[in-house]
Amino acid sequence: MVTEHLSLPEDALAENLFGISEERIYAISLALEKKDYEKVHQLIENLHAADVADLISSLQPELREHFVSIIKDSLNPEILANLDIPTRVQVLKMLGPELIADALKSLASDDALEVLSSLEKEQQERVLQAMLPRERAMLEKFLSYPKDSAGRLMQRELVCVPPFWTVSETLHFIQNSHDLPEHFYTIYIIDPRQHPLGEISLSLLLRHQPDTIVSDIMNHDIRSILVTKDQEEVAFAFRHYGFVSAPVIDESGRIVGMITVDDVVDVIGEEVEEDILHISKVHESNVNEPVSNTAYWRIRWLIITLINTLIASFVIAQFQVSIQKITALSFLMTINAAMGGNSGMQVVTIVVRALATRQLRESDIWRAISREVLVSLITGTFFACLLGGIAALWVNDLWLGAILAIALFCNMLWAAFAGTMFPILIHRLGLDPAVSAGPILTTTTDVFGYAIFLGLATLILL
Amino acid sequence: MVTEHLSLPEDALAENLFGISEERIYAISLALEKKDYEKVHQLIENLHAADVADLISSLQPELREHFVSIIKDSLNPEILANLDIPTRVQVLKMLGPELIADALKSLASDDALEVLSSLEKEQQERVLQAMLPRERAMLEKFLSYPKDSAGRLMQRELVCVPPFWTVSETLHFIQNSHDLPEHFYTIYIIDPRQHPLGEISLSLLLRHQPDTIVSDIMNHDIRSILVTKDQEEVAFAFRHYGFVSAPVIDESGRIVGMITVDDVVDVIGEEVEEDILHISKVHESNVNEPVSNTAYWRIRWLIITLINTLIASFVIAQFQVSIQKITALSFLMTINAAMGGNSGMQVVTIVVRALATRQLRESDIWRAISREVLVSLITGTFFACLLGGIAALWVNDLWLGAILAIALFCNMLWAAFAGTMFPILIHRLGLDPAVSAGPILTTTTDVFGYAIFLGLATLILL
Repeated sequence: MVTEHLSLPEDALAENLFGISEERIYAISLALEKKDYEKVHQLIENLHAADVADLISSLQPELREHFVSIIKDSLNPEILANLDIPTRVQVLKMLGPELIADALKSLASDDALEVLSSLEKEQQERVLQAMLPRERAMLEKFLSYPKDSAGRLMQRELVCVPPFWTVSETLHFIQNSHDLPEHFYTIYIIDPRQHPLGEISLSLLLRHQPDTIVSDIMNHDIRSILVTKDQEEVAFAFRHYGFVSAPVIDESGRIVGMITVDDVVDVIGEEVEEDILHISKVHESNVNEPVSNTAYWRIRWLIITLINTLIASFVIAQFQVSIQKITALSFLMTINAAMGGNSGMQVVTIVVRALATRQLRESDIWRAISREVLVSLITGTFFACLLGGIAALWVNDLWLGAILAIALFCNMLWAAFAGTMFPILIHRLGLDPAVSAGPILTTTTDVFGYAIFLGLATLILL
Repeated sequence: MVTEHLSLPEDALAENLFGISEERIYAISLALEKKDYEKVHQLIENLHAADVADLISSLQPELREHFVSIIKDSLNPEILANLDIPTRVQVLKMLGPELIADALKSLASDDALEVLSSLEKEQQERVLQAMLPRERAMLEKFLSYPKDSAGRLMQRELVCVPPFWTVSETLHFIQNSHDLPEHFYTIYIIDPRQHPLGEISLSLLLRHQPDTIVSDIMNHDIRSILVTKDQEEVAFAFRHYGFVSAPVIDESGRIVGMITVDDVVDVIGEEVEEDILHISKVHESNVNEPVSNTAYWRIRWLIITLINTLIASFVIAQFQVSIQKITALSFLMTINAAMGGNSGMQVVTIVVRALATRQLRESDIWRAISREVLVSLITGTFFACLLGGIAALWVNDLWLGAILAIALFCNMLWAAFAGTMFPILIHRLGLDPAVSAGPILTTTTDVFGYAIFLGLATLILL
């Protein structure tokens, strides 16, 4: 019988689509509390390493420690690579250097590196000491590449052949080598200096006559990635060109590893996520992170809001006399600031994303601004009429409605102009517009929004 | 010589890392204006299809039409698959049904489907009429799958063999079949009813003895994806389990296609992006979309802000008398609302993302709330002291400072509680928290923020 989602050999996977079910987490927690370890082992038997990692993150802290202590002697190293960082840090502490060194040995070089990177310097040293010299040297080399660079993302294991080999020589080599990666899809053709010349996919190789020379059938159009290149650019290139894999080269042009699309999948998610978080002024965070760290980062970001809102308050304070005379100003003024700020944030978000995805180029600045200003002429007119009307009826004062309409229209126009210009200028300065464009913009829409509305009202009505 | 980024055979690629350079776009624009078509062809000769697509999007509208008209007879169909949707719609209009039908033939089934989907129903019909019956039937079948489902993402081309075949039989089959996909990495093993039994990667197949039976070496732990499954869940599974490819099955469990990780890369970016845009209240948009569409969507989202802010204004209006007596309230009140709203949005963003990435489960609601409330006890105390102090000094009134501090502390506590609870409840109701949690929350922090501050001030000071 086929279930709704899956036709699978094992009942373990017949769970609610993908991922571990809440029922199973509950059952395992229960078995752990009862110290029924046989039951625990039975419940996790068929689980994928990624699901065991999820399980560990979801367990209550004391059960987590308990669980790790009973699986640590037969630990599947893949679980470590799949854990989220704060949980991984905790689990690694429970394991100790020898067990970690053991686990790293059987992981692919990129995964081993990821696990090792989550340790502090001192602990890293101890783990490295516990490894064989050859493995240690390899990992130390990798650790020397900058954080978030291609070197941290690549795997060292890859298959290279010289250009004059035939298809049958290449196949023979693959069949008889023992230190090739477990899975690979592409073979690189390199010159004597180890510079990549081209690539050929395994499936294509298989479909050529045995005596064909590989350089005659290889794809020349390869793009090598420098080992120090930022991972965001690597992800962009994979997404843009639809790469399945790409060779990584060092400064002298020698091939040192390769990056495959499955390594990049996480980076793409992370990079886009970083932008979300920055636009919403949140630091990258995780539900398993210590509360004090989270509080620290929240405070840092909220200080920006505080400064922003204090400046706006200072502007309002200049019009105290007007507000005292026409109290309706006190509740109408907030509408103008909020609408300006929100419409500006819409523009900032679109522009920041368009810059990140290279949809928008810096040289397009005037085209982008005129497009956004055009949009805001429509939205501004719409809301000026709507809100002006509502306000006039509410406070029964046509003039006040008209003033609010004018102020709103001007503020939305400004929001469109500045919401496009700020991110592009910040990007030109080499800074990250996702972080700073929003706060700068909303400060200006607040200041401008309050000043023009209260200023016009003071001029005309008093 | 090796350039900073690349060691490449063609100068075309020695551009600023990846993607087409602005200089080249400029040079092509110039050549188009001068009608120097030879120069245009020479400038685009070595460009990747993805870069030509970028070029088309970046050209001014009249030059774009011009450019398409000169390349359309020798059009690389991959360019169509790489275009952003609004530009693709324009380009397809210039091509006409016959040329489109021609282009679709040479694209992989998933790419052909993507291009076809961007046409309106009527135009789709005309393109389908221009195709051969067999191709038409295949595309019509694919079009019948729901939008954003696995069926729209998969490619039909895949390699399947029976479980009793040997390695050499399988290799022989691959070498001699003519309708296999150009690149593939995984072979599926299927039973006589065409249900998938397991998979084996090409590289593993090559390293086994010719007389090995494939079912003895296949990986049984495969997860089949139902053809109607939502693409977001597919992307989640790929990211979670690190799949390189997965088989797609229909309701009867028969294998109908496969999804590879490179198809999923875009989905991952898109899904995360959708969340950003919704949190920032922007509709999915593109710099090439018509202005009127953009304005329509902006207005729809801003109406939510308008309602939110009108409710807040209504609350403020109830305290007009108090504001008239103590005008300092008018500028201090906005600080409390802004801080509450911003700290709440931090929480909403984290919770929405944690739900989307399955980091947070609905059953964890109390754990998540208590964690966020704990964080807000720290941040709330910090800002209550800081802001209360600033306010007391500014207006020279200790009581007013104390009232602001209490109001701010309460509002931030509420923001943490509601910012966690709202997204989880909305998610439980089966709605998208990215869309609605933010606006609902900021309405409550505004209302609560103004009401408690102005209310306390009225009670205590008047």
